[in-house]
Amino acid sequence: MPNPALFQYLLRLGDDRLVLGHRLSEWCGHGPILEEDIALANMSLDLIGEATLLLKLAGETEANGRSEDGLAYFRDSIDYRNVLMVELPKGDFGFTIVRQLFFSVYSLLQMDALTRSTNTDLAGIAAKAVKESRYHVRHSAQWVITLGDGTEESHARAQRAVDDLWRYTGELFLADDVDREVASAGLGVDPSTLAERWQAEVGRVLEEATLTIPKTNYMQRGGRDGKHTEHLGHMLAEMQIVARSHPGASW
Amino acid sequence: MPNPALFQYLLRLGDDRLVLGHRLSEWCGHGPILEEDIALANMSLDLIGEATLLLKLAGETEANGRSEDGLAYFRDSIDYRNVLMVELPKGDFGFTIVRQLFFSVYSLLQMDALTRSTNTDLAGIAAKAVKESRYHVRHSAQWVITLGDGTEESHARAQRAVDDLWRYTGELFLADDVDREVASAGLGVDPSTLAERWQAEVGRVLEEATLTIPKTNYMQRGGRDGKHTEHLGHMLAEMQIVARSHPGASW
Repeated sequence: MPNPALFQYLLRLGDDRLVLGHRLSEWCGHGPILEEDIALANMSLDLIGEATLLLKLAGETEANGRSEDGLAYFRDSIDYRNVLMVELPKGDFGFTIVRQLFFSVYSLLQMDALTRSTNTDLAGIAAKAVKESRYHVRHSAQWVITLGDGTEESHARAQRAVDDLWRYTGELFLADDVDREVASAGLGVDPSTLAERWQAEVGRVLEEATLTIPKTNYMQRGGRDGKHTEHLGHMLAEMQIVARSHPGASW
Repeated sequence: MPNPALFQYLLRLGDDRLVLGHRLSEWCGHGPILEEDIALANMSLDLIGEATLLLKLAGETEANGRSEDGLAYFRDSIDYRNVLMVELPKGDFGFTIVRQLFFSVYSLLQMDALTRSTNTDLAGIAAKAVKESRYHVRHSAQWVITLGDGTEESHARAQRAVDDLWRYTGELFLADDVDREVASAGLGVDPSTLAERWQAEVGRVLEEATLTIPKTNYMQRGGRDGKHTEHLGHMLAEMQIVARSHPGASW
């Protein structure tokens, strides 16, 4: 049944994970060790799998009912609703794993709340995602601690990643009318209610990693309104080329 | 305990899967539909996971005992022992899925035989790989039939893939002293004993797909002796750059 607010909300959830999953997949075959190559690919698959389910559900709440593939492959950058953090280029391994920590702590809090959604499909997707996010948090926290509390070089790279990424964290918790509407209907969760627990959990990991939170109040925003960096456009061009070259084809 | 023949044999098993796993991973984010993107990435992960176990075991049978990462990231093309088929560029989706059919039918027969290896570690790896290969065979066979017995364009592309790949199939079944030694010790399987069943199974799928086996007796070879195409060198350069930039580093 069409529900414009829920549609927008599900797009945000799906796009965050689709875009980050693709960024992670760029590590395929480029990890520093075989085991980590496999771990990054597994996390990528989890996120793309979650995105597929979320975008499928989004399509079912839309008046013109697009499929998950229609939503993934035939929207342009301006119609994507992910936060800016997930579209930034993959950077070095330190950048990737710090971003993974920031996003997965957020995702775990968000998905845990969504297991109580009055939309039972969404609650079911969230239950699966909670398990996956828990592993992502554990894995990335361990790596952030290893790097931060590691060699001089690994510490410097991890600190630079924290410095570069911090100004993209504010956007995770911005709430607008869409969020408030789905939250008051019991369908979704208001992201601003997650900020405090996120800061506590991330702060705990960074402290153990001997990493410092930069002193800045300036926060980037725009992704939820379709105002993206040029990086998203490049990524979508690559991701969509096969599907768009053969629209409607069976392969 | 050092066993030069078993070491060589395990390198062949491991390298086939490591190289093909990486070729498949190049599809990450470029599949024609989300579901297939995920399926290709899952098969890639299965193969890289099998390769990791096989190369680890290989290192344990070697006099100077390299680790799986040492074997994967610090050997040059000339020391790789994979068949040529798996190193060819990923091509279009038809090429990828026909190659996957050819290799996975081979792998299923091989791993099924290896579950009876007198080396219990290898038998254990094989037991896991049999389950994975069975899924790969089913998935790729369904796609080959869909494409071959599909539209005019999909049929033409699948037929071209069969034509291009066929001359690389002979190498799968070549046996030399290494194969005969491990086979007679009950450790491995002589690949020439798998040819007949492979042809029957692959022939059955191609027939259902309305695809024709090319009439050629010329077969490419050289991979088992380290005589590779230039494609492997390019792939390894990309795959190894992170590990080689930070040798011995913890990240």
